[in-house]
Amino acid sequence: MISPRSRELRPAYGFDEVAIVPGDVTVNPELTDVSFAIGGFTFSHPVLAADLDAVVDPRFAVSFHQSGGGLAVMNLEGLQTRYEDPEEALTEILSASDADATAVIQKVYSAPIREELIGERIRYVKERGAICAVSATPASTKRLAPLAVDAGADIFVVKATVTTARHISRSIRGLILAELCEQLPAPVLVGNTVSYGATKELMETGIAGVLVGVGPGAICTTREVVGVGVPQVTATMDCAAARDEHFRQTGRYVPIITDGGMRTGGDVCKALVAGADAVMLGSIFAGAAETPGRGYSWGMSTGHGQLPRGTRIHVGVNTTLERLLFGPTSRTDGTENLVGAIHTAMGVCGAQTVQEFHEAELVVAPSIKTEGKKYQLARGQG
Amino acid sequence: MISPRSRELRPAYGFDEVAIVPGDVTVNPELTDVSFAIGGFTFSHPVLAADLDAVVDPRFAVSFHQSGGGLAVMNLEGLQTRYEDPEEALTEILSASDADATAVIQKVYSAPIREELIGERIRYVKERGAICAVSATPASTKRLAPLAVDAGADIFVVKATVTTARHISRSIRGLILAELCEQLPAPVLVGNTVSYGATKELMETGIAGVLVGVGPGAICTTREVVGVGVPQVTATMDCAAARDEHFRQTGRYVPIITDGGMRTGGDVCKALVAGADAVMLGSIFAGAAETPGRGYSWGMSTGHGQLPRGTRIHVGVNTTLERLLFGPTSRTDGTENLVGAIHTAMGVCGAQTVQEFHEAELVVAPSIKTEGKKYQLARGQG
Amino acid sequence: MISPRSRELRPAYGFDEVAIVPGDVTVNPELTDVSFAIGGFTFSHPVLAADLDAVVDPRFAVSFHQSGGGLAVMNLEGLQTRYEDPEEALTEILSASDADATAVIQKVYSAPIREELIGERIRYVKERGAICAVSATPASTKRLAPLAVDAGADIFVVKATVTTARHISRSIRGLILAELCEQLPAPVLVGNTVSYGATKELMETGIAGVLVGVGPGAICTTREVVGVGVPQVTATMDCAAARDEHFRQTGRYVPIITDGGMRTGGDVCKALVAGADAVMLGSIFAGAAETPGRGYSWGMSTGHGQLPRGTRIHVGVNTTLERLLFGPTSRTDGTENLVGAIHTAMGVCGAQTVQEFHEAELVVAPSIKTEGKKYQLARGQG
Amino acid sequence: MISPRSRELRPAYGFDEVAIVPGDVTVNPELTDVSFAIGGFTFSHPVLAADLDAVVDPRFAVSFHQSGGGLAVMNLEGLQTRYEDPEEALTEILSASDADATAVIQKVYSAPIREELIGERIRYVKERGAICAVSATPASTKRLAPLAVDAGADIFVVKATVTTARHISRSIRGLILAELCEQLPAPVLVGNTVSYGATKELMETGIAGVLVGVGPGAICTTREVVGVGVPQVTATMDCAAARDEHFRQTGRYVPIITDGGMRTGGDVCKALVAGADAVMLGSIFAGAAETPGRGYSWGMSTGHGQLPRGTRIHVGVNTTLERLLFGPTSRTDGTENLVGAIHTAMGVCGAQTVQEFHEAELVVAPSIKTEGKKYQLARGQG
Repeated sequence: MISPRSRELRPAYGFDEVAIVPGDVTVNPELTDVSFAIGGFTFSHPVLAADLDAVVDPRFAVSFHQSGGGLAVMNLEGLQTRYEDPEEALTEILSASDADATAVIQKVYSAPIREELIGERIRYVKERGAICAVSATPASTKRLAPLAVDAGADIFVVKATVTTARHISRSIRGLILAELCEQLPAPVLVGNTVSYGATKELMETGIAGVLVGVGPGAICTTREVVGVGVPQVTATMDCAAARDEHFRQTGRYVPIITDGGMRTGGDVCKALVAGADAVMLGSIFAGAAETPGRGYSWGMSTGHGQLPRGTRIHVGVNTTLERLLFGPTSRTDGTENLVGAIHTAMGVCGAQTVQEFHEAELVVAPSIKTEGKKYQLARGQG
Repeated sequence: MISPRSRELRPAYGFDEVAIVPGDVTVNPELTDVSFAIGGFTFSHPVLAADLDAVVDPRFAVSFHQSGGGLAVMNLEGLQTRYEDPEEALTEILSASDADATAVIQKVYSAPIREELIGERIRYVKERGAICAVSATPASTKRLAPLAVDAGADIFVVKATVTTARHISRSIRGLILAELCEQLPAPVLVGNTVSYGATKELMETGIAGVLVGVGPGAICTTREVVGVGVPQVTATMDCAAARDEHFRQTGRYVPIITDGGMRTGGDVCKALVAGADAVMLGSIFAGAAETPGRGYSWGMSTGHGQLPRGTRIHVGVNTTLERLLFGPTSRTDGTENLVGAIHTAMGVCGAQTVQEFHEAELVVAPSIKTEGKKYQLARGQG
Repeated sequence: MISPRSRELRPAYGFDEVAIVPGDVTVNPELTDVSFAIGGFTFSHPVLAADLDAVVDPRFAVSFHQSGGGLAVMNLEGLQTRYEDPEEALTEILSASDADATAVIQKVYSAPIREELIGERIRYVKERGAICAVSATPASTKRLAPLAVDAGADIFVVKATVTTARHISRSIRGLILAELCEQLPAPVLVGNTVSYGATKELMETGIAGVLVGVGPGAICTTREVVGVGVPQVTATMDCAAARDEHFRQTGRYVPIITDGGMRTGGDVCKALVAGADAVMLGSIFAGAAETPGRGYSWGMSTGHGQLPRGTRIHVGVNTTLERLLFGPTSRTDGTENLVGAIHTAMGVCGAQTVQEFHEAELVVAPSIKTEGKKYQLARGQG
Repeated sequence: MISPRSRELRPAYGFDEVAIVPGDVTVNPELTDVSFAIGGFTFSHPVLAADLDAVVDPRFAVSFHQSGGGLAVMNLEGLQTRYEDPEEALTEILSASDADATAVIQKVYSAPIREELIGERIRYVKERGAICAVSATPASTKRLAPLAVDAGADIFVVKATVTTARHISRSIRGLILAELCEQLPAPVLVGNTVSYGATKELMETGIAGVLVGVGPGAICTTREVVGVGVPQVTATMDCAAARDEHFRQTGRYVPIITDGGMRTGGDVCKALVAGADAVMLGSIFAGAAETPGRGYSWGMSTGHGQLPRGTRIHVGVNTTLERLLFGPTSRTDGTENLVGAIHTAMGVCGAQTVQEFHEAELVVAPSIKTEGKKYQLARGQG
């Protein structure tokens, strides 16, 4: 009796497994346009800063805006809204040993959210002229979104590990995204998701953008803990296909933002070629002198009381926001001048806009690092 | 002359190579039902403890039942039935050096099985109110199964590295499973198997469940020693296909239990998505304070006198049964709160029962650990 | 302009990438027949010892025959026929530093072959009752084969890195295998080859067996030096397909022997399932106390004066011939009791002969070692 | 809703992932012809030395020609044309610490190019009887090419990370290759490229050869920094398909030269089988005593002021040009006697010319190194 091939599994790809193929036409990098438009706002580059307490506090949100017109997202359920002075809580997390870090984070994040702090944090940003984006979990959105928008927030992000348009729960009446979009006088972004179907249904609720990515980040251990996750290149390609199909059907272009898992300019470029309109970076910013995390990073789900899915990692303070985004740099590992890398990659692919960049080819290719290392071993001992 | 492609080999996947794709619908974890029914019994969660001497002794079987209604299997050919007081034998194994461990295990397991101890061990469990499952090899089943059931065993497991419904041997009349099922007043589980054909034939004998897995466990070296083995995700998918086909033909649903190779809650979730109705865990329990192995684990085939296929491994005592199964935890590597992980993963896949969880998608995806590690290297040196 | 997929490359598999799937029927290992017939001789097991100076000298050839009826091949162009007393040359090689080893081997093997020693070595083996097989390169075969057979050699092996039935050279009249087979009163084996076409043409010359394998051995660096090589599982499958087609066309069954690259009993079993009738092992024997290499191994091509393709490796003396072939053992890594491993694997596949074993399924499966190691890392630190 | 498979990604292969399959016919290595013809010149072997300052200076170009008729390319925008006496600049680079190396390189290469030095460097080579090839970037070609050819350069190479026949820039009138070819009284080679389309368009401009390779070299980090690159085996196969199609359409055979990423003779052979007419090597030459880099290597793009893509690596002086190209050698890792390796590999594939060598089969095969290493681990501890 021959085994029937029970189920075919399709391959999914991460950044390390693909490479961008140069184009048949090239364009001078200075002619490439990397701007990003979402919810009526236009940003001069497509790099967002993620809503991590180690990365974005009100002061960073302002710096990020000033340093070149980027968008940073503040978390409404983080330290900033649980503590009048978050400095002490931050110090407690940063001074914990590696072994204790998760337990300390669980404890610090068990403090209640104080609604009066929400307005305070948002006003700090708005008073300094920056566009202000804030995030909350689906469970808190109904309560916090009106407060935030009243205080001046320009963009509201509904964010959980996995969010769908159809969520089954015991509560009589959960969050209905279509209603939220209709009632809230601000564009709504929703995430995270990784699949064609969920993305398409989310877009049909009227939201302004989708965050793509479940389980890929450096601080995320969702794959180990619950087995769930899709590598980012495939996730981005699938969600981009949903965006394009939604556009064909409705004429409305809803951008997608690949969130998490990128470590270099090369990874950012691959996300864009895979179909992202922008990227959201977290831990890579933790090395910038301007971030509150002093070289550390951790995620929101690290604070989960029962089943934490994340770790505190240490990257060290090793750059500035300016060098990280725009260079110049003497690093050759792709961790500085990310926006410059986008311009250059678009140039060799002959793409003048990010949408044209979506047309470049990706191939499945093993990481080059291994080859280089082997070379040095083979030759360096002679 | 062009080489004909002599034989096509199909790919087989293990836990490290796949990931679960979130669903288009999500459900609140507290609404998910993880119960497991087999042979007329229902258990409140689908995690079984494997019949290893390092994991299950009578005392553990009772603890496991009491800690949340799980099923532990006792081995009728292990230390418990070879020694009146197994403590001394256990100490001998645990105090052996790494180099001597296999030889010591071979020696200790060469003591004869004492039938009077079988009843004693079973009665210990039954008197304390737990459901009692016991296992024996096919060669010993005819002799030991009636003794065990007479002493009160509720479930009998026939277990060898590979078991089929058709075994060719010199003995005039070997074990015939159909007869065993008919004569034994207790449900019979059989294992292990990894293929569609063998599983279907086993189910046709009237057994109550099938154990899936050849060569995947941490203590197992069957792949090195004889080259035999199928990675667990593919093995589970193939056997689940046989179960579903058997159900279509007969209307009888025979559950399958993936046995071995799981190291984290994520692996357990992947086994369930691949089609398992439950999982049997071994070495992962060896870290619990309640197990007899004091942080060590080894398998039955390690004791084979001619061709041992297994190693003694050390995991250290590092958790309790309660935390391992139900949390709460501050670990972020997936090694505690396994049942909580199942609830959470079912939630993000929109599955309210384990059978609905079988419908989730798996993709082939490289392990995320590598990516994380690379990240830290790239950034931590800046 | 879309890139055409210029050439499709087919995948080739080595031992580490495949696993044997158990059968739907099982058979008791003691009922399995592992004998091997070639050129009119029958051996009680299908394991041959390779013609390496570190492994086979006349004394070993006798021991190997006596220890259980196996066949060892002596090299007619090695130390035994270049030196009256090879002990000194051997000592020179073994006492060289790692850095100097290749240069020393090149020097030692530059001594001329002394034809009178050929008869002496062969008579040593024949006088002690063993079957005697000897090997030479194609270039020396015309000269050495008659000498060897006159001295009593039972089997003659023509061996080079790559041998084909059609070789183009400057010499007026090179080796014509069909003539050799006709004239030599002893069966002729030829190797090595890895492809369907070359194997089929070789078989059509009337030879008695084919050695399969280019570039796979532990001491071989042909893949690094000239890029040539085919992993052994695929090479064996391709050559087995040629053997089966040749049998269909002519009714003559010409056995194939997989030569090189096997490190464990598991690898040997995989070679047989892939289609080998027997296996030839080299470096794995170097650990046996009976071999001349005292725990070292190196190949013939290591001695090439211009472009050596091989290294001297150290495995240490760590077993005996008896334990290596037949056990019993306390090792669980598959490096002892190789013949026992074949019996066991055939049993779980329900194969009573090696030819039935060819019908078992192989799947592409990642090495299990990685999984085990990860497990220990994940758990051992808790 | 089932996810549509958004985009299929095709696999791309590097040298480590493929192996050459021996042929059904073999030929004596001394009968193989490895000569290489391009632009009216014929070289006795197909190995070119790359235009790196660490490898080719005028003195090396002469040595390379004299040592066996090979072609070395001098960079017209490197140290030789920026400094009257480049020795001091070289010393500055070589004595920099690893951490400072890139910054020092950026500084040293910011010195202006002095046109008078171009003629001087070329005349040094021509006066000593060597064929002289020089390279420049597309942006400098219009200015430097006439100067170089006037001074006696025989071959002109237009070279950038990625070059296409259609480049979009702000300059009124950029480089038009068809015009350059028509006006320049010397053959023009262009690179680098990796795709079918770009290669075909480049060939249609009338150039004499194409350099293949983006991002593969040991000193190149283009893949990390901008995500762009195609592994060399696939790149070579794609460009070879374009060459063959161009030949079918026009009758003009334009050779392709695989440039970068080769570390051993085996890699060189694989490039030729993949379709290359010749190879260009860089860092592998840095170990030769004749090179100016004293055991170091770095690339031109390492000097980029904003976004460097390369690193200085250290290989150590460990060979001579003669041994590297022609042996004899006692190394068994494929890093010496590269031309001998080509002869040998052509022999086992039955190829008498490089064009026949293109017909050999490549298979996808995992690197053999891993297997060897595992073997030593498994056995060396016994």
